[in-house]
Amino acid sequence: MNEQLLQLIKKRFQVEFKDTTLLEDAFTHSSYVNEHRYLELTDNERLEFLGDAVLELIISEYLYGKFTDLPEGKLTKMRAAIVCEDSLAKFAKACQFDHYIRLGKGEENSNGRQRPALLCDLFESFLGALYLDQGLVAAEKFVAQVIFPKIESGAFSHEMDHKTALQEILQRNGDVAISYQLVGEEGPAHNRQFAVEVSVEGHVIGRGQGKSKKMAEQSAAAAAISDLNNN
Amino acid sequence: MNEQLLQLIKKRFQVEFKDTTLLEDAFTHSSYVNEHRYLELTDNERLEFLGDAVLELIISEYLYGKFTDLPEGKLTKMRAAIVCEDSLAKFAKACQFDHYIRLGKGEENSNGRQRPALLCDLFESFLGALYLDQGLVAAEKFVAQVIFPKIESGAFSHEMDHKTALQEILQRNGDVAISYQLVGEEGPAHNRQFAVEVSVEGHVIGRGQGKSKKMAEQSAAAAAISDLNNN
Repeated sequence: MNEQLLQLIKKRFQVEFKDTTLLEDAFTHSSYVNEHRYLELTDNERLEFLGDAVLELIISEYLYGKFTDLPEGKLTKMRAAIVCEDSLAKFAKACQFDHYIRLGKGEENSNGRQRPALLCDLFESFLGALYLDQGLVAAEKFVAQVIFPKIESGAFSHEMDHKTALQEILQRNGDVAISYQLVGEEGPAHNRQFAVEVSVEGHVIGRGQGKSKKMAEQSAAAAAISDLNNN
Repeated sequence: MNEQLLQLIKKRFQVEFKDTTLLEDAFTHSSYVNEHRYLELTDNERLEFLGDAVLELIISEYLYGKFTDLPEGKLTKMRAAIVCEDSLAKFAKACQFDHYIRLGKGEENSNGRQRPALLCDLFESFLGALYLDQGLVAAEKFVAQVIFPKIESGAFSHEMDHKTALQEILQRNGDVAISYQLVGEEGPAHNRQFAVEVSVEGHVIGRGQGKSKKMAEQSAAAAAISDLNNN
């Protein structure tokens, strides 16, 4: 068993595996198994199958509890954005898991260590191993460290409506008063334009326009988010 | 709250909800909410979002533990066959859930109570409600009553290889000795036909042919399963 990996997981995530062969399996790619048949190793594919479902439940429960006003359709979109290959590959790299996966030579030489599909599978198989070794609460604790802060920073909020997203960002550290005010209306009835300002605690933080008051509000919220992200 | 539904769930599944509004929400279709806006009800769509993930994990963990020799690809196919709309709709009906869902008039008149998509959502939203009310173990217990026996009876075994499926069926009540025997080989080398018999505890229960010994074994196992299902 790779001692450095054990240390990383212990120090960074406060996790100590009881059954380290599970961890070993999670970090073993099929290409490595195929190149070392005499060792009779197990690759991480079955753990990935399980970990995928573990992650899906943890993210679903989090979104369900966090975004109590979002309808099912929006929740589903957001979940899909979070558990997609690209984002899980990034999480695997953020955890430095890419350093420790055991690859066959062919896979290594074709830059498999950077391949999003491989890294995504690795992230899921780690989660599968963690779930088997220590249960749902431990898996949840890990995801809460690695993924929830990203959701809370609004990284997936393009999947929400902008007003909900803005509210999420601003109320991260407690309640604040957010208000939308109609500041202009112009043009003929069939082509009216509305202008809205969004304020937080009385300070204007975004302006938007649209063909309805509702659309102008969404646009103002989007402008405010974009402005916040650039500062 | 519908007393009959409470009784059904208590008697049949030994479940008593602490928060019966969750159960009520699970059995409330959006069409009913829309027709009774003044009641400010909640439909079952968000619970379905959560229940979908709960079910996915329970089924995944079961398959992972049960079919230790199946590769990830087969597990994924089997999971997909189990959690698909049609099969969940059947489980919802088997639980008599279709009697209790609250529908709007339009939905009722267009035979919504029989619609697979609606019944599938209902099954998942019940599971979401059960999970929120009583946790994963209780949800698992329910699925173990309703779905696992179907899996064990081989209802989804077309997704497995036939030899594994046959083993599953025969060993349901403990270990039995299953053996495959080559009983014939004929034809020229480039077009050889193999014949195999499968026996359990010494009794032949199926015969099959194929272009390789392996294919003949699969065919014998399939014949045995088909025979067992017809008796």
